[in-house]
Amino acid sequence: MPFDPATLKYDAAGLVPCVAQDAVSGEVLMVAWMNAAAVARTLETGRVTYWSRSRAAFWVKGETSGHHQRLVELRVDCDRDCLLALVEQEGPACHTNRRSCFYTAVRAGEEVILSEPMA
Amino acid sequence: MPFDPATLKYDAAGLVPCVAQDAVSGEVLMVAWMNAAAVARTLETGRVTYWSRSRAAFWVKGETSGHHQRLVELRVDCDRDCLLALVEQEGPACHTNRRSCFYTAVRAGEEVILSEPMA
Repeated sequence: MPFDPATLKYDAAGLVPCVAQDAVSGEVLMVAWMNAAAVARTLETGRVTYWSRSRAAFWVKGETSGHHQRLVELRVDCDRDCLLALVEQEGPACHTNRRSCFYTAVRAGEEVILSEPMA
Repeated sequence: MPFDPATLKYDAAGLVPCVAQDAVSGEVLMVAWMNAAAVARTLETGRVTYWSRSRAAFWVKGETSGHHQRLVELRVDCDRDCLLALVEQEGPACHTNRRSCFYTAVRAGEEVILSEPMA
């Protein structure tokens, strides 16, 4: 069946969350949002393209930072309201310069920082 | 620093998305939603507890299906508006009886089913 971005179930703002996962290591790097046009652009260009809610604009990951995110494979969940992007990530995915945005763990009720910014 | 679920940034409905990842294999299993009370219950009980938007009720994963999801570690992202739960998943995480909800890939513009329901 041909994939049509219009068949996804978007929220009231026209967005679905997308989980970016390192295609090789399996590390979950970040979660951001896409609208139908961002999904289409991601598939067309192979460069993962989100919709920035704060800037209300397309956000081609790495366009300003140089930390490009190349699409390896896009997956859709059973409810069609969430995406998983397997990616090749250049350098850090996080704006704090860490590889992953999920660098804070909760251990025994305390927040523990798991990684430092990349050099 | 002690972790306080009230410090997360919830959406207008009081929810944050939570990615459940197999703590051993790294497979992304599902994405669902938590409110502050669900986050607290997950940490207190070690059983991953979501907020069901359709039922407007707590959803202790596996309570009805028997496919329990035990929390190994909870992580918070840089913006504090998304969670990653590393879990031990018994059997399928997906309501279709598949291990993961992300069983549909987009390849060359076509939807491809990657896995079948578990026996």
